[in-house]
Amino acid sequence: MKIRLFGVLLLFTFSLFAEEGMYPITEIHKLNLKKLGIELSADQIFSENEVSLSDAIVQIGGCTGSFISPEGLILTNHHCAFRAIQNISSTENDYLTNGFVAHTLQEERPAKGYTVRITERVEDVSQRVLNAVKHIEDPIEREKAIEKITKQIVKEQEQKHPGKRAAVSEMFPGKTYYLFIYTYLKDVRLVYAPPRSIGEFGGEFDNWEWPRHTGDFTLMRAYVAPDGSPSDYSEENVPYRPKSYLKVAAKGVEEGDRVFILGYPGRTYRHRTSAFLAFEYEFRMPFVVDWYQWQIDLLTTLGKDDADRSLKFSSWIKGLANTEKNYRGKLQGIRRIGLLEQKKNEEEKIQVFIAENNLKKYQHVLTEIKQIYHTYRQSAVREMLLSYFGRSPVLPAVARTLVLAAEERQKEDLERERAFMDRNFKRTQTYTLLRLKNFDSQADQLILQELLKKAAALPEDQRISALRSIFKLDDAAETRQVISEAYRKTRLSDPEFVKTCFAKTPDELKALNDPLINWMLALKEDYETLKNIRKERNGKLRRLRALWLEAKQAYLKTDFIPDANGTYRMTFGFIEGYAPADAVYKAPITTGRGILEKHTGKSPFDTPEKLLALLKAKQFGPFVSKTVGTLPVGILYSCDTTGGNSGSPVLNARGQLVGLNFDRAFEATINDYAWNHQYSRSIGVDIRYILFLLKYFSGAEHLLEEMGVQ
Amino acid sequence: MKIRLFGVLLLFTFSLFAEEGMYPITEIHKLNLKKLGIELSADQIFSENEVSLSDAIVQIGGCTGSFISPEGLILTNHHCAFRAIQNISSTENDYLTNGFVAHTLQEERPAKGYTVRITERVEDVSQRVLNAVKHIEDPIEREKAIEKITKQIVKEQEQKHPGKRAAVSEMFPGKTYYLFIYTYLKDVRLVYAPPRSIGEFGGEFDNWEWPRHTGDFTLMRAYVAPDGSPSDYSEENVPYRPKSYLKVAAKGVEEGDRVFILGYPGRTYRHRTSAFLAFEYEFRMPFVVDWYQWQIDLLTTLGKDDADRSLKFSSWIKGLANTEKNYRGKLQGIRRIGLLEQKKNEEEKIQVFIAENNLKKYQHVLTEIKQIYHTYRQSAVREMLLSYFGRSPVLPAVARTLVLAAEERQKEDLERERAFMDRNFKRTQTYTLLRLKNFDSQADQLILQELLKKAAALPEDQRISALRSIFKLDDAAETRQVISEAYRKTRLSDPEFVKTCFAKTPDELKALNDPLINWMLALKEDYETLKNIRKERNGKLRRLRALWLEAKQAYLKTDFIPDANGTYRMTFGFIEGYAPADAVYKAPITTGRGILEKHTGKSPFDTPEKLLALLKAKQFGPFVSKTVGTLPVGILYSCDTTGGNSGSPVLNARGQLVGLNFDRAFEATINDYAWNHQYSRSIGVDIRYILFLLKYFSGAEHLLEEMGVQ
Repeated sequence: MKIRLFGVLLLFTFSLFAEEGMYPITEIHKLNLKKLGIELSADQIFSENEVSLSDAIVQIGGCTGSFISPEGLILTNHHCAFRAIQNISSTENDYLTNGFVAHTLQEERPAKGYTVRITERVEDVSQRVLNAVKHIEDPIEREKAIEKITKQIVKEQEQKHPGKRAAVSEMFPGKTYYLFIYTYLKDVRLVYAPPRSIGEFGGEFDNWEWPRHTGDFTLMRAYVAPDGSPSDYSEENVPYRPKSYLKVAAKGVEEGDRVFILGYPGRTYRHRTSAFLAFEYEFRMPFVVDWYQWQIDLLTTLGKDDADRSLKFSSWIKGLANTEKNYRGKLQGIRRIGLLEQKKNEEEKIQVFIAENNLKKYQHVLTEIKQIYHTYRQSAVREMLLSYFGRSPVLPAVARTLVLAAEERQKEDLERERAFMDRNFKRTQTYTLLRLKNFDSQADQLILQELLKKAAALPEDQRISALRSIFKLDDAAETRQVISEAYRKTRLSDPEFVKTCFAKTPDELKALNDPLINWMLALKEDYETLKNIRKERNGKLRRLRALWLEAKQAYLKTDFIPDANGTYRMTFGFIEGYAPADAVYKAPITTGRGILEKHTGKSPFDTPEKLLALLKAKQFGPFVSKTVGTLPVGILYSCDTTGGNSGSPVLNARGQLVGLNFDRAFEATINDYAWNHQYSRSIGVDIRYILFLLKYFSGAEHLLEEMGVQ
Repeated sequence: MKIRLFGVLLLFTFSLFAEEGMYPITEIHKLNLKKLGIELSADQIFSENEVSLSDAIVQIGGCTGSFISPEGLILTNHHCAFRAIQNISSTENDYLTNGFVAHTLQEERPAKGYTVRITERVEDVSQRVLNAVKHIEDPIEREKAIEKITKQIVKEQEQKHPGKRAAVSEMFPGKTYYLFIYTYLKDVRLVYAPPRSIGEFGGEFDNWEWPRHTGDFTLMRAYVAPDGSPSDYSEENVPYRPKSYLKVAAKGVEEGDRVFILGYPGRTYRHRTSAFLAFEYEFRMPFVVDWYQWQIDLLTTLGKDDADRSLKFSSWIKGLANTEKNYRGKLQGIRRIGLLEQKKNEEEKIQVFIAENNLKKYQHVLTEIKQIYHTYRQSAVREMLLSYFGRSPVLPAVARTLVLAAEERQKEDLERERAFMDRNFKRTQTYTLLRLKNFDSQADQLILQELLKKAAALPEDQRISALRSIFKLDDAAETRQVISEAYRKTRLSDPEFVKTCFAKTPDELKALNDPLINWMLALKEDYETLKNIRKERNGKLRRLRALWLEAKQAYLKTDFIPDANGTYRMTFGFIEGYAPADAVYKAPITTGRGILEKHTGKSPFDTPEKLLALLKAKQFGPFVSKTVGTLPVGILYSCDTTGGNSGSPVLNARGQLVGLNFDRAFEATINDYAWNHQYSRSIGVDIRYILFLLKYFSGAEHLLEEMGVQ
């Protein structure tokens, strides 16, 4: 692959021992892996034509997973397989609580809705994408054109490869685009899950925290038709035989060992400017933290003396809390390392460099970006409120989706918003109906009230007039009245009714005269305007960011790795501890001692009696770490990960499986904005803890055998 | 001193290097100080006849303090001097916010209400106390007799030494009693206070936490009349010249150094049985944690959008939160180290020993103690609620104090409850009026409602009939009504009115017909019964505990140190870190880096700009720790402390001042129940941070000079 910058051909020249970097898998042959202490060649890790380690890596349940046996056995996180376990659980057979072990293939249970995505091919399509926008200067038109050409490529490819899915990913903003072709295996089955009290040990308390003692792993298996082709669930189906699978290193790793990770990291923003970061740090993240915390408090209070409600809200709260804590970590991190000042200083230097070299093309880029964020800030609260109005409370979110669906489905497939294209529409419906499961009328109305209270307080030039007139915002009592009447009348809380609505045209939808749908129809213009404002802003920013990256490139005289964008990457580091704060040091391997310490008997620290007994008896068999002298549980490493790396395998220098990635340390939440050797640490389950649980806790020796562990 | 046990004479035989122990200062000559690495003799530390280090140690503002210059300069904690600083602060001269520096004696400002207590004499009065109860078997009568004889001794001594105060302290429960004679210096002045943002840095967040970065120190000075006698504030007064004062070791300490602490630790319960601990762990502490947390949540919510209220509630919340977090720490600690099981195991062994040696006297002691706690548990919620009804909400607490005062003041001085004896009554009035400053009608009523909700839920045999009939407990709406009417009518929110009530007889009080006083009059009998139940229970327990200690003594064949009881003690340890949890290590010296890390600009992490600048410029002069290579801020040590040790000097092997004790680590909150080298760590301000702040932050070189620091 070639990366074009400044119109000349540049090769990646990564510094040799720098740990930063989610390297695009297609670029790793430019690394000196040997010098990094990795004993595999780049081709052994990834090759377009030969079988390599990468063929063992898949995407599953929004996470990464890996094949760990010739019979399609897959290792991923418990939290990634959660829905599958929940789905087969009942009051009589509560696998979520008690764990699940299939002793034979016959006992393996379908993981409904789960698919296993295998990357079949990677292709550089930059030329084609850039050609399509070559003569377009208007930023909105440019955005639209890029969207259109990428959709076009996907459609072509999917027609050319029936049954496969395609995706085009932007690597360098505005510069390089890659086509990925995926195979989806649709018969996925659950093989093993530890009890929730092991797989989720620590829950929200320990989320984003090290030291960690969570056995966050699950085993699944991919099945195919007897002829080897992808197939929906069928009794006829046979285990999939992957081109490649990972070997398990039952001896694990010790402090100081080299490790690397393969997977699909989601999004990072390291190449963005200080104007973006300041907006995030000073406005957006604090706003979201407040808003989410308010909702968490509300849902917690409502669920307090009400077990049913508490259960209903638990995953909703979990989602909110996950983001809230992540943002808090980021805010702390940005402050502590002075990231905003660092970025500003660097930008000042680049600006001087631009002036000194008279690079007119870049002269006003930074000012223009700043100007965009300056303008954005004026209306940001308004935008957030409008957006949350159609998202935070359940029924308005459903109403908004229905209105959008009716409109978009009238258009040509390629012209639609992605969620409503034929290839995605079913998924959108499923997701919408899932949200209804969280619906609680009182919670919904209170969330709505709070949002409208905020909307009522908007300055005059920012007012949302449709909201003002529907909800009589100047009078809180009247607002409450309007809401409660609408909730009494609406039928959107009925999933069967909502299902029928997905097929309706705009006129049919209007004719229902449902109060919540009417709200969204009344706000149609506001949402339309908002969409265009965002498109314009993003289009402008995309062009400016690309220019600024060029300037930075020229100034630094070095290449850098593109921000993560959900595509396949490799990152490497060491098993190592860190000092998160003055006078505090955290070691890189946790042990069974920590489980005993944390165990309170109450969720999320309620370890099963059997595990407690094993830990107290120190019955660890061969699964003892030489350096910590006892059973290892969690491992910490200086690899560079982000959301999407959940379920990624942690591999030793020889590419053998030593752990399963599932989280980052609190201080490493800032990874999305900057990488730093001091605080960037990711968290995994030690393979020895996994093997120990399979063997001694669950007596699943047949699985160890299948993995080739003696 | 001799300790009589089993009727034979035993000498204390402490094990040589054990770190546990708040040694009664009169016992330290039995320690091998040299082997402990302490370069002073016991007599140099404490002597009844010669001047010693101990003459530099005082009690001040409920804390410990020490003289650090020949001119009566006193070092204690910022949180101990808080009221004094607050008192001289105004909107124009906000010393609390900005700090205070007196550049001359003339600029020193009176610390109203503060006294400096100097221990003049210590005397063993065990024989006299035990003689007085020799023939009394009934536990209640025994309790009463002990109370009477100790009050008698105090009265005699105070008559014999006019102007001094006396106290008799029980050392070994039911065994040994000591008389302490104190001089009180009543003219105390404020000399130096750092800004609150330094002295309270970290606030509630960091309370009970290590690593710590709080400059929790203040300088005060004691004054006396020109003839050297204690005197109220007067311009004539001159600095007090203490018999002894501490030398400052400007070089400080490093990791591994021996340190010791002198001071007045409050209460520990290490010699109590598992029945007591189980009651605390399973019932009382969780109950208090819940109840305090409920109040904290309420006060926080009410103060949320109301700056005045928020300010008014701040110290109230602080007090609740301090206990709540301490108890949470204890609960975690008891669970983690399995203290209850440890105690039970030990008791079983002692029981076997008793049986084997046929020690009939002790045979049923443990069973009887258990039986008492078993009975206690049945009525414990009732007792707690009755007690909180007269304590948690402000106005009922005031009403209860007034009713008690009127009754008790009718009695002979020695017969009264301590708070209402002549020597204490003024203090009681001041405290009551202080509580009124927190009064907020809505908060008070909501707290009352919540308590009554709990009272309404009591099982039938536990009902408090007076509450039921006053508040119509079966109907929450009616209860609210009764409360709100009473609060409308009562005059107890008026301090001037309350002042007049303190002089009233029971009849006069009754004639006021104040609804809240009427409540307390109606509950008189319930409170009387409760008091007697408690007296009986405590009397029985006191006797049984003494017996059990004898049995334990016989079993262990060793002596042990009596539980802390507010008397003068010595404890020693090392500057050392600890591992509070699996994979976590905390080092024993914090640095300026931590202040920069924690600084957010918002209270309680709002470091003054000047300090930030000094830290960034690394302008630390000679105050750099050799081992951490920068400015030390806090120190951690394995000394054995508890509440009351606030303000205690931390001394090096030569008895020189190297730090100022102010807190314990979270895991060390369990110190009150058990000491353990693994987690018992106390927290101090490093003397070098104090000197650095005085010199570079405040330019108070004259104070360094006075302390003899070059």
